[in-house]
Amino acid sequence: MENPAYQKLVALSEELQLLSDVAGLLSWDQEVNMAKKGVAYRAKQMAWFSGETHKKFTDPQVGDWISECEADSAIIEPGSDAAANLREWRHSYDSETKLPSELVTEFAATCALAHESWAEARGKSDFSHFAPHLEKLIGLCKQRVECCGYDDKPYDALLDKYERGSTTAEITSVFADLKRDLIPIVDEACAQEPFDPVKNGAEYSIASQVAFNREIAEAIGFDFDAGRIDTAVHPFCTGLGPMDTRLTTRYMTSDFRSSLFGVLHETGHGLYDQGLREAVYGQPVGDSVSLGVHESQSRLWENQVGRSAEFWEQWLPRAAHYFPNLSSLSVEEMTRACNQAERSFIRVEADEVTYDLHIMVRFEMESAIFNDDLAVADIPAEWNRRMKEMFGLDVDKDANGCLQDIHWSMGGFGYFPTYSLGNLNASHLFKAAKEQDSSIEAGFKNGDYSGLLNWMREKIHQPGSFYLPKDLVERAAGSPVNAEAHLAHLRSRYIFG
Amino acid sequence: MENPAYQKLVALSEELQLLSDVAGLLSWDQEVNMAKKGVAYRAKQMAWFSGETHKKFTDPQVGDWISECEADSAIIEPGSDAAANLREWRHSYDSETKLPSELVTEFAATCALAHESWAEARGKSDFSHFAPHLEKLIGLCKQRVECCGYDDKPYDALLDKYERGSTTAEITSVFADLKRDLIPIVDEACAQEPFDPVKNGAEYSIASQVAFNREIAEAIGFDFDAGRIDTAVHPFCTGLGPMDTRLTTRYMTSDFRSSLFGVLHETGHGLYDQGLREAVYGQPVGDSVSLGVHESQSRLWENQVGRSAEFWEQWLPRAAHYFPNLSSLSVEEMTRACNQAERSFIRVEADEVTYDLHIMVRFEMESAIFNDDLAVADIPAEWNRRMKEMFGLDVDKDANGCLQDIHWSMGGFGYFPTYSLGNLNASHLFKAAKEQDSSIEAGFKNGDYSGLLNWMREKIHQPGSFYLPKDLVERAAGSPVNAEAHLAHLRSRYIFG
Repeated sequence: MENPAYQKLVALSEELQLLSDVAGLLSWDQEVNMAKKGVAYRAKQMAWFSGETHKKFTDPQVGDWISECEADSAIIEPGSDAAANLREWRHSYDSETKLPSELVTEFAATCALAHESWAEARGKSDFSHFAPHLEKLIGLCKQRVECCGYDDKPYDALLDKYERGSTTAEITSVFADLKRDLIPIVDEACAQEPFDPVKNGAEYSIASQVAFNREIAEAIGFDFDAGRIDTAVHPFCTGLGPMDTRLTTRYMTSDFRSSLFGVLHETGHGLYDQGLREAVYGQPVGDSVSLGVHESQSRLWENQVGRSAEFWEQWLPRAAHYFPNLSSLSVEEMTRACNQAERSFIRVEADEVTYDLHIMVRFEMESAIFNDDLAVADIPAEWNRRMKEMFGLDVDKDANGCLQDIHWSMGGFGYFPTYSLGNLNASHLFKAAKEQDSSIEAGFKNGDYSGLLNWMREKIHQPGSFYLPKDLVERAAGSPVNAEAHLAHLRSRYIFG
Repeated sequence: MENPAYQKLVALSEELQLLSDVAGLLSWDQEVNMAKKGVAYRAKQMAWFSGETHKKFTDPQVGDWISECEADSAIIEPGSDAAANLREWRHSYDSETKLPSELVTEFAATCALAHESWAEARGKSDFSHFAPHLEKLIGLCKQRVECCGYDDKPYDALLDKYERGSTTAEITSVFADLKRDLIPIVDEACAQEPFDPVKNGAEYSIASQVAFNREIAEAIGFDFDAGRIDTAVHPFCTGLGPMDTRLTTRYMTSDFRSSLFGVLHETGHGLYDQGLREAVYGQPVGDSVSLGVHESQSRLWENQVGRSAEFWEQWLPRAAHYFPNLSSLSVEEMTRACNQAERSFIRVEADEVTYDLHIMVRFEMESAIFNDDLAVADIPAEWNRRMKEMFGLDVDKDANGCLQDIHWSMGGFGYFPTYSLGNLNASHLFKAAKEQDSSIEAGFKNGDYSGLLNWMREKIHQPGSFYLPKDLVERAAGSPVNAEAHLAHLRSRYIFG
């Protein structure tokens, strides 16, 4: 592509990615390594990066370059990387320039304080401590919504930030279908007798967990020459460059599954990052497409693969090697132990079958806040009412209710629905992959996961942001995502006999 | 200080420090964590930071601000932080603007290749492999010398970069005094019967070494809420911010002293960084003053303190707790085991008494290269000739000779002398501190190191770069540094009976 404006945009895009990856390291290091007194200075460094990248990208000449390219018929020809890059740059440029830089700065400063306040409020289970910060954050998000504009509902402007193109209407409809058929599955799954031969008082040494997890991550395709696994309070995956993917997990000595499924989940994210095209790294076509697709990759390896009987057929002997107290378990018992359902308060500890109900509560709450003006003071009661309605549970304290998640304290309204989209995408893509390529399932029986990984590499990872998220999934699977495959998957896992 | 130009310089200085600390994290992470495939991208990120900081600092308006301040009598009034800051900014600005940015870029690119080539050449002990890169680096350094200018010898321009104000003539004179009196001490120390009851076949577990080292680092004053210790191939200390100091060490299971003295050394550097004034962090007066003073702090805690009988009086019981095979040793035996001398090829493994001779060889070599035009092809033979003369040793291969150190592959000509300056400063300051404050030595007997640390805090750490290095040491000690105190220290340690 010879157009000089296009070349400048590519160079800028790559420079901004480079800076964003440096900011990623600052953040990773803060979670994994940094001693506590380093926090204030680290926050200053992070703020420098947000300010600098916002300033560089919203420079009016960037808009000129984009317009120049849009006038160049060779570039806007659909089907090229350049056209896709341009589409994404235009979208980001329009979104970012709509936000006054004072709003961006105030938002960042408010989040920093809100985050501190939330952690304290959760600790004391005192919503009133967090309420003024939440009020301010919601106010700023409403300003943001007004700046960005929306076609239908105000909340749409927030959803679009995390899942390009998603709307309140569409998610409401998807969730309605899902909920209708999910409730009976939850009822039946939760009625089963609890079965847990793993958490039996045995001690699972951390060294053995580390070794076992690494063996599995390597077997499913994670490249340890281009990444690593560390310990952190909150498990996450962050890409620091085309050849540097960092995963974290946490360890419980009473139950090896906590770290293992954490690693499988984050490895799924990591495989996506390691599968992006290196040659176009830093351009939209070399970047992951959305949170809902990213989450499909983590859920795929954690749940569809990692909790299956085929998986434990392969890995139970290794588990018993590392943890001899498991030697007496059968594959069926281990599989069943990894697929237990229970209604509970806390989303991050929820099993696969109840998980989406937790997301629905949050989606309904956020939708009420932004579309219908639910007042901050009414949030705890409204949360508890919905939890009663959805789960039949009486929330005992706000720490187990509306204060449990970190997202709101970071101003992340609109983020939660991507978790459920991830679940639906995972099942939808997994079903399509197996139908399209019969060697995938055959491979599992020999511990060979390359068939599935290669399918994802080709259909999901390599395209990057070439397509919009929904188009990408539809093209890969041959049909638009819906709840069917996921419901079938849950039925097969959780309904016995 | 109300002058707007001064305010702008302060803000710029703090911004550049912030960026330099981010680059420090990139580099620390590369040594401590990063998987191998991340190297190329990390190098790109590092290059971005050098380019950006050079560009920001050499902007002509920075020169205007400095000139404006120099015309403001309120600022240049000696004795203020502002005057000291201005002196340092002027010096750095003049140095950096003298270098054409092409030279800076070419130097960085040449170093990257030279470093690879050196590692390979050292591995194969093949100087000819490294020679063309060394030739090019020396050529670029000679260009640098011409750009910067010098009063007496060309090599002075390189020395000044690492130790502000030092010259070939002055170091030649200091080293001549030192060498004259050191040689007989080396002769006598190396004639002693070797005595090593520590490296006796026992296994020193890494976990115990980590715990023991941490206990000691904490006892001498390192704040683990504002720093940490990790493992790396090459031990180092890097300050990532006013409250974030990272040390590294390496572990040998056959000898706990390797990691311990590494930690004591790096903790000395770390205490200096943790002792800088936080309120002026990012300004020259909040920054360490020179490598020769930094090294004095590391050598102080490693050698003057850590290899003393008083130290082992306190710590031998703890050592025996962690490593029971040491229980039968007396304090005298342990102290003697920590002060063994031997003539050897490798600088980084050299004991305290022979160490400076290694530095002298390097100083003489570099001085010959830059002042007298020693040809690259003649370097190995010249190195070996000087090693024979200095140590009576026949170098068996270049890997044990002129290829052993990393410094030249990074273009670091002029760096080595600061190691010996560090040794001299350490002894000179330690002697003065004990003479000025008798409670310092009394404290050691109870394991209380705060007297010594507080003296260093006040006299060396808190001034930052307020004074020039030599002035700082002279003001602290009450007399200019010379070799006397160091020679007396070595005699008391290495000459028995």
